[in-house]
Amino acid sequence: MSVRKIKLTIQYDGTAYHGWQIQPGMPTIQSTLADAVEKLTGCRVELVGSSRTDAGVHASGQVAAFSINSPIPTENFVRALNHLLPDDIAITDTVEVPESFDPIRDTKSKLYRYTIYTGSARPAMQIRYCWHRPGQLNIEAMREAAEKLLGTHDFKSFACAADSRQSSVRTVMKCEVSGEGDRITFDVQADGFLYNMVRNIVGTLVEVGRGRWTAADIERILAAQNRAEAGPIAPPSGLCLIRIFY
Amino acid sequence: MSVRKIKLTIQYDGTAYHGWQIQPGMPTIQSTLADAVEKLTGCRVELVGSSRTDAGVHASGQVAAFSINSPIPTENFVRALNHLLPDDIAITDTVEVPESFDPIRDTKSKLYRYTIYTGSARPAMQIRYCWHRPGQLNIEAMREAAEKLLGTHDFKSFACAADSRQSSVRTVMKCEVSGEGDRITFDVQADGFLYNMVRNIVGTLVEVGRGRWTAADIERILAAQNRAEAGPIAPPSGLCLIRIFY
Repeated sequence: MSVRKIKLTIQYDGTAYHGWQIQPGMPTIQSTLADAVEKLTGCRVELVGSSRTDAGVHASGQVAAFSINSPIPTENFVRALNHLLPDDIAITDTVEVPESFDPIRDTKSKLYRYTIYTGSARPAMQIRYCWHRPGQLNIEAMREAAEKLLGTHDFKSFACAADSRQSSVRTVMKCEVSGEGDRITFDVQADGFLYNMVRNIVGTLVEVGRGRWTAADIERILAAQNRAEAGPIAPPSGLCLIRIFY
Repeated sequence: MSVRKIKLTIQYDGTAYHGWQIQPGMPTIQSTLADAVEKLTGCRVELVGSSRTDAGVHASGQVAAFSINSPIPTENFVRALNHLLPDDIAITDTVEVPESFDPIRDTKSKLYRYTIYTGSARPAMQIRYCWHRPGQLNIEAMREAAEKLLGTHDFKSFACAADSRQSSVRTVMKCEVSGEGDRITFDVQADGFLYNMVRNIVGTLVEVGRGRWTAADIERILAAQNRAEAGPIAPPSGLCLIRIFY
């Protein structure tokens, strides 16, 4: 028996949690997972998650890793942890990785999806997983605007003002807007994201969709490097971390 | 101002409720709706629902009606009630109907959908709206078996033993099984349903899907008119009342 590093892929409904990261006295995804690992193995591990998803944000492909000295075979962690976890968190995959694997630093890109429901009546069975924003939005105009975000830019205008990371330059390789009936989805993939970046991008594209701004405003907002120039932040319920690419 | 009868179409996530019908001290859909109508109009109305959905069962097209003497225009009830209702219940339509309209007696047929998720890991973001039953099921065999339920039969074998309605003869006009990836759906439409009938049908078809029974057993079970002959009941979370036809 020796120390192994295990990579978890995790799906969760974030509605009931104060985000990924451990906060004293608050239910979080990280603490709920760490409790389950402790119950299973007797060890309190340090769980490093790739993305610090916010309160109310969901994930179908969050990644976390921990090192452990346990006789339990790696593949058995899926079933054993799912048995101990609440219904709204599930492990979908476990794999042993080299001790050098770092879920944050080794990330090549991340894909997020944001969902808006535009019908007038509240979608009671999807309300946890969307932003209910009644009223038509111009998909074509939002598509054109979304293309302006592709490539390498300083995304300071789309970051929470409190984000203190040194560089706000990121590369967006996908920013797609799709509409089907009363549902609009935004798929955003980048090599990294600033705090609240996807929700600020969606809130800004919605201003384009409702006709207040055009694609040219996106160029202006990017150039301003000032959060106050972008649109209001979209609510967390519509956001889902789909996949992390390594 | 005179008394009007208003027909509501209602969508709900039944997870947090003890079913449709008012039960003292328990949160139910009916009581939550009646509270909202009372808050809006000052009147405690008698809300008659078409289907008494069970605890944990969902609806996208439940129908209820009530009579009221109020100056509020019928069409305004949608927005006003949705404002007062919790996120997991929503009115999708209101229409004035003749005083003679009876949401139960006037029903021509009802359509329910049942969803099973067959993947091995728990679908944390869909767990409220499905039965998570890991493992392959034979769709073709279930389809063949489902056809045996079409038409007019005595469905006593598929009713909860406590169901005390006089006749257990019903006509099933649709019983379709569809599979797509890890998701199997059962659409069942009938002129009426016995208590727990859809969940007992699904539980029985799953016994066919896993190879314990064949379509011939469905004929045997129907003929037996004995609940003990059918399969186990499927859990409520997978069931959704889709539409009531008048």
